Amino acid sequence: MAEFQSKIRTIEWVDTYSKMVDQTKFPDKYEYINITKGDDMFDAIKTMIVRGAPAIGIAGAHGVVLYAQELNQKNLSFSDFKAELLKKSDYLVTSRPTAVNLYWAVEKQKDIIKNDNSGDIKSLIEKLKSNGKKLELEDIEINKKIGDYGAQVVPKGATILTHCNAGALATVGYGTALGVVRSAFANDPTIQVFADETRPRQQGARITTLELVMDGIPVTLITDGMCSYFMKKGMIDMVVVGADRIAANGDAANKIGTYTVAISAKYHNVPFYVAAPLSTIDTSISSGDEIVIEERSHKEVTEINGKPICAQGVNVINPGFDVTPNELIAGIITEKGIIRPDYRQSIAELFE
Amino acid sequence: MAEFQSKIRTIEWVDTYSKMVDQTKFPDKYEYINITKGDDMFDAIKTMIVRGAPAIGIAGAHGVVLYAQELNQKNLSFSDFKAELLKKSDYLVTSRPTAVNLYWAVEKQKDIIKNDNSGDIKSLIEKLKSNGKKLELEDIEINKKIGDYGAQVVPKGATILTHCNAGALATVGYGTALGVVRSAFANDPTIQVFADETRPRQQGARITTLELVMDGIPVTLITDGMCSYFMKKGMIDMVVVGADRIAANGDAANKIGTYTVAISAKYHNVPFYVAAPLSTIDTSISSGDEIVIEERSHKEVTEINGKPICAQGVNVINPGFDVTPNELIAGIITEKGIIRPDYRQSIAELFE
Repeated sequence: MAEFQSKIRTIEWVDTYSKMVDQTKFPDKYEYINITKGDDMFDAIKTMIVRGAPAIGIAGAHGVVLYAQELNQKNLSFSDFKAELLKKSDYLVTSRPTAVNLYWAVEKQKDIIKNDNSGDIKSLIEKLKSNGKKLELEDIEINKKIGDYGAQVVPKGATILTHCNAGALATVGYGTALGVVRSAFANDPTIQVFADETRPRQQGARITTLELVMDGIPVTLITDGMCSYFMKKGMIDMVVVGADRIAANGDAANKIGTYTVAISAKYHNVPFYVAAPLSTIDTSISSGDEIVIEERSHKEVTEINGKPICAQGVNVINPGFDVTPNELIAGIITEKGIIRPDYRQSIAELFE
Repeated sequence: MAEFQSKIRTIEWVDTYSKMVDQTKFPDKYEYINITKGDDMFDAIKTMIVRGAPAIGIAGAHGVVLYAQELNQKNLSFSDFKAELLKKSDYLVTSRPTAVNLYWAVEKQKDIIKNDNSGDIKSLIEKLKSNGKKLELEDIEINKKIGDYGAQVVPKGATILTHCNAGALATVGYGTALGVVRSAFANDPTIQVFADETRPRQQGARITTLELVMDGIPVTLITDGMCSYFMKKGMIDMVVVGADRIAANGDAANKIGTYTVAISAKYHNVPFYVAAPLSTIDTSISSGDEIVIEERSHKEVTEINGKPICAQGVNVINPGFDVTPNELIAGIITEKGIIRPDYRQSIAELFE
């Protein structure tokens, strides 16, 4: 199997700060920003300078290190330092409530804090740094495995529809849904991608088209309502999307609009896959009904580039995510292989 | 039954010109433009200064009068005048290929031209003017009947989802899909509307929200991908959309994205209605497969307000319409009542 070399590295720990691509500048600019403070990381996650469930997991891990560096200035006792840092860590997780990866990565850092009884703050900070780095590199490795497993179910010459951005720019690099695309493309340059615009925040238009163009993979931009038109014409061979949280029964929360694509795929007998690392699966949640859906600013719906697109006086509801029920999902592509229905059973087996 | 009084009059013949609301200015401005030349009417239809199948039918009828007034300056013989005017009329129809109403209304004018053997150009022009006016007023009457029939299937306190704009601003006034809303609202002020944004041209955001706010009807703007989320939550009681062309078997072409909403409605057991005048039904077309789908400018997808929303180098396909198959349609609401399946039979009976 040929390996795909991507040009994109979304987030990386450098010495004392977190370096990340500023995703609010897309598609105008592709530029880096250095985050040097914990509160700035909170804001970077909340305002989606960094976004995508796996990437904000790493951002969370980096954020804990940034808070640790700041608390280290305060001459705290080791136990006070730990207590304060655990508090800051819990606060950091509240920046985005839906994605489980953020919680997961911060918990990994919290475990290190809790288990360190060395009394040595500097050495604890070093442990948190190197764990952050480890999570970074693991993320890329995991994505490559997801990509390689997923590529096995991509038909030759396939057109793959995706929604939102579960790409290199949603992860440390490579991507989950777009990792599948990259691994498939490396061995079959006749495959191509259709990218949903993904209103309201247009991650498909702004981010997915950008990273695919950068990596030389053919991509066609469509609006969110068009998917059924192209499926009916037989122009879409499969759908692959990412996930922000997957319940123990396989129900998958992902960017708003995903559920609509999944329903349409089912109607047209187009296989609909979710690609996500195991860290996205939250076995404490029995079904998608229990997943908290974050409500976002109304301006995301009523304005584009700061300009109103609708009449004043209109009501808005802006859920950031929806849940695709397991019955619409052909398979969940993970770093341990492709999980198939019955999901409750196959997920339980995987986590045994 | 209470009658609804709308503030909106989209298009109206005044003395020697056609006065219309300039719909490219929404939602910033609600202002009128006077069209005084045939070629300007062609452009007004093509660039969607006037849009909505019934409204562009009237625009077409007015356009024939404008061309007639211009040809009258040329000192042609009566037969040359008629021949030239028929040519201009056929040209006018090519401004938008999908909507049958344009063809239908221009054909009505052509019938008058063909059947006039008076030799009197001025009197022929007067006949075309008064026929244009008649079609205008008929359109409002037809919409009110559609609205009243449709209101009978709107549950008390219903939330009605609509896609694109099949409103007063898509017709001479009152509206087809939004005519149903107006008639229902007149007798039950607890009903409300959810409006799909309707990318790429955002007619739902720009136009539907505007006309409903102007008429005091509560409206919530959602993005196109959100419909399934709200249907699953039980927040949508029915869907009503317009149509640009309906085949003899009930398949209905409407704004791109409609088909996706219809599939989602079926999945959630939410009744999906099409509201349209009989002039929208093209019995010469056996099924939706025969309906020509116009492809529109790629910039509608890649730019918003003149600003790129995606990477350079992306491919685009921009179909303006899609076809909802009859199996997804609970009923077609017309001025003669609600047509139910089997559509091929019920439509044939209606046109007998």
